[in-house]
Amino acid sequence: MMRAQGPPQPPPEKVVWKPGTMLFPVPVVMISCAAENVRPNIVTVAWTGVVCSDPPMLSISVRPERHSYGIITKSREFVVNIPSMKQIRATDYCGVASGRDVDKFAETGLTPGPASTVAAPLILECPIHLECKVRQVLPLGSHTMFVSEITAVQVSKQLITESGRLAVEQANLAAFAHGGYYPLGKKHGFFGFSVQKRRRAIRPSK
Amino acid sequence: MMRAQGPPQPPPEKVVWKPGTMLFPVPVVMISCAAENVRPNIVTVAWTGVVCSDPPMLSISVRPERHSYGIITKSREFVVNIPSMKQIRATDYCGVASGRDVDKFAETGLTPGPASTVAAPLILECPIHLECKVRQVLPLGSHTMFVSEITAVQVSKQLITESGRLAVEQANLAAFAHGGYYPLGKKHGFFGFSVQKRRRAIRPSK
Repeated sequence: MMRAQGPPQPPPEKVVWKPGTMLFPVPVVMISCAAENVRPNIVTVAWTGVVCSDPPMLSISVRPERHSYGIITKSREFVVNIPSMKQIRATDYCGVASGRDVDKFAETGLTPGPASTVAAPLILECPIHLECKVRQVLPLGSHTMFVSEITAVQVSKQLITESGRLAVEQANLAAFAHGGYYPLGKKHGFFGFSVQKRRRAIRPSK
Repeated sequence: MMRAQGPPQPPPEKVVWKPGTMLFPVPVVMISCAAENVRPNIVTVAWTGVVCSDPPMLSISVRPERHSYGIITKSREFVVNIPSMKQIRATDYCGVASGRDVDKFAETGLTPGPASTVAAPLILECPIHLECKVRQVLPLGSHTMFVSEITAVQVSKQLITESGRLAVEQANLAAFAHGGYYPLGKKHGFFGFSVQKRRRAIRPSK
């Protein structure tokens, strides 16, 4: 009803801006890929996210002009390497340089290692790796989205506690927001913490 | 060649795990939505990411069992509200409770406000809002992905500097990793920092 009289005024404490990709923070990861007769390459991607829990799937979005776009289109598989802050300079470099011009493994000193379900190499220095196979390709405009299934995970042994838990809070992971790289701060709480006491009071067996 | 002899052994410093959604960190946002004859609702989502720069697009993935799934399927629009750590308890609550049972605005004390391009309300307490319209719906398994165009952005005035810059580093934003909520630490560098000196040396006009 209100809308027939024109768009509503923004709330007084807000400013309306034109549309932009202002989702913060997002992951920042190094994608390693390989295809026949092409040097394995690395491309840094922040346009990625989980898209399904079962089967486990994520998407990455890549510009068709990028060298890795051709490789992934051909091989239909890649590895998502999650960097720690130690690799953030290399991560930044792999988002700026092109694999057409340079061997990014050689330039950064990063080490390729074997993945378990895909032919693309993983980047050994990174603490966590998600091996992926492309299931759907959606051209959206500037970027094409590769909707992909996670086929295996590899984790650095030093991040696994004696009880077998992944100590992700010790991985010194990086987030990306508005062009800046940020380390994660101190963990604040776990999913469900807001109702934990109430739950315990009502259902002590849970 | 190697692969015909069976899968490669993992590198000695790694453990291979079965596939899982171990992309870290990811955003954690409150999605507000509304449809005719339904109470406006909030659902917390970590399965979201940017998928295209031009046009600006993001995806959210929601389980069909969620109350908000029906609302978004009907209205085909929603607002992504990016919380600061101040709203992290409410954010957690909106991921656990169901809008079928409770009025989440009332329960959390969060305040609805007008969006500029969609009928769904935004959540005034959050510092950044992305108004979205659904363009493609992809059922993937446990979750359905809503590939959506960002049609407007709203930002709290107090985050905008005198020069008009968004001071995202002052927003106290939250990231989500392996079930835990994390504030962002101190900014480490900007996209391109790894080549900044070299660039200046070669192309001083840039």
